[in-house]
Amino acid sequence: MRWRKISDAVVRRLPLYLRVLDELAKDENNNLISSQELGEKAGVGPALVRKDLAWFGEFGKQGVGYEIDYLRSELRRILNLDSTHKVVLVGAGSLGTALTRYNMRRFQEDESFTLELIGLFDSDPDKVGQEHEGIKVYPITELESFVRENEVKMGIITVPASDAQDVANRLVNGGVRAILNFAPVTLDLPEGVQLASADLTLELKRLAYYINEV
Amino acid sequence: MRWRKISDAVVRRLPLYLRVLDELAKDENNNLISSQELGEKAGVGPALVRKDLAWFGEFGKQGVGYEIDYLRSELRRILNLDSTHKVVLVGAGSLGTALTRYNMRRFQEDESFTLELIGLFDSDPDKVGQEHEGIKVYPITELESFVRENEVKMGIITVPASDAQDVANRLVNGGVRAILNFAPVTLDLPEGVQLASADLTLELKRLAYYINEV
Repeated sequence: MRWRKISDAVVRRLPLYLRVLDELAKDENNNLISSQELGEKAGVGPALVRKDLAWFGEFGKQGVGYEIDYLRSELRRILNLDSTHKVVLVGAGSLGTALTRYNMRRFQEDESFTLELIGLFDSDPDKVGQEHEGIKVYPITELESFVRENEVKMGIITVPASDAQDVANRLVNGGVRAILNFAPVTLDLPEGVQLASADLTLELKRLAYYINEV
Repeated sequence: MRWRKISDAVVRRLPLYLRVLDELAKDENNNLISSQELGEKAGVGPALVRKDLAWFGEFGKQGVGYEIDYLRSELRRILNLDSTHKVVLVGAGSLGTALTRYNMRRFQEDESFTLELIGLFDSDPDKVGQEHEGIKVYPITELESFVRENEVKMGIITVPASDAQDVANRLVNGGVRAILNFAPVTLDLPEGVQLASADLTLELKRLAYYINEV
């Protein structure tokens, strides 16, 4: 039980701020950042930056700004990024395997996030037993027990829409608390399980709205 | 110039409603839907459904609900989905080509959205000239002129973070109005160009926040 009442809109911006700080921290000469600069680099207004961070404590000094290293470590702590998170990915098709390749590289480069992809799952017997980036494909029937035994709390779904709810149920039954869903379907999840949707078609349809606007 | 003051939070939910209606329309026996049911299926409260739709007109009748076919065609019109949208994808690496395969199939199956991926672009001479799903890879140097000549308004960026701003500039200079960005960087775009971020690491970091919460 932590900062219970903080809205997801706030939580959503914290990784953006952290990304800016990570980038700045690469240059040792950077010690301080103003909310103005942090906002500009994160694409957020400076007042909102100050408001967002104030939910979690007093990180800055008026007229001085935020100490980059300190704010960075605080954001990491708030976002739970100091511990390693085990992840499974369900759906070892073209998107799933590409994400595996892409993200394994990204995860390794990212100092501020220890994410460990420990298993791929698929219902296709031809795919079971394959390896991608050194990670094995297991049968979908083993998903729930695997997740439970390995205490996996995060799952990524890249199966077709018709299978996504079933996969989500298995993940949740095994103890998963957070799901990143690529399938073009709204999942029905119990309270307390957090969902992030990565349905690209939805995003593209949203973008289409703005195209004819002048 | 259309519904100028409508917030993106509203626009963002319209494709969700449309997805529900598309699904329901597959069964000819479905004629009407209540805001309650539409909300449940879209994962949105019924009052918010009514409020969102009211921005664009009177689509439902109190005590009766919404006519599925009518609301569906209205949402399509509002979202600009009746016209074909040409798209380019920049970055023909593993993620870019997987998205090409995945989305080409999705786009073809999706009756309510005519999206035409007409070109891939990459800076790697070895990739230029390749074809993925019948779509050719062009050199990045031709991006701006290609976009202008073909009146492309949407672009997808799957290049490394260090190249993303340069790619975005080329797209915008060529006339692109909407960008779906997979690169882990905040893009600086002129007003009037709409951005959707598909930075999966950001989403995963957000999810991490919720994992230890009980």
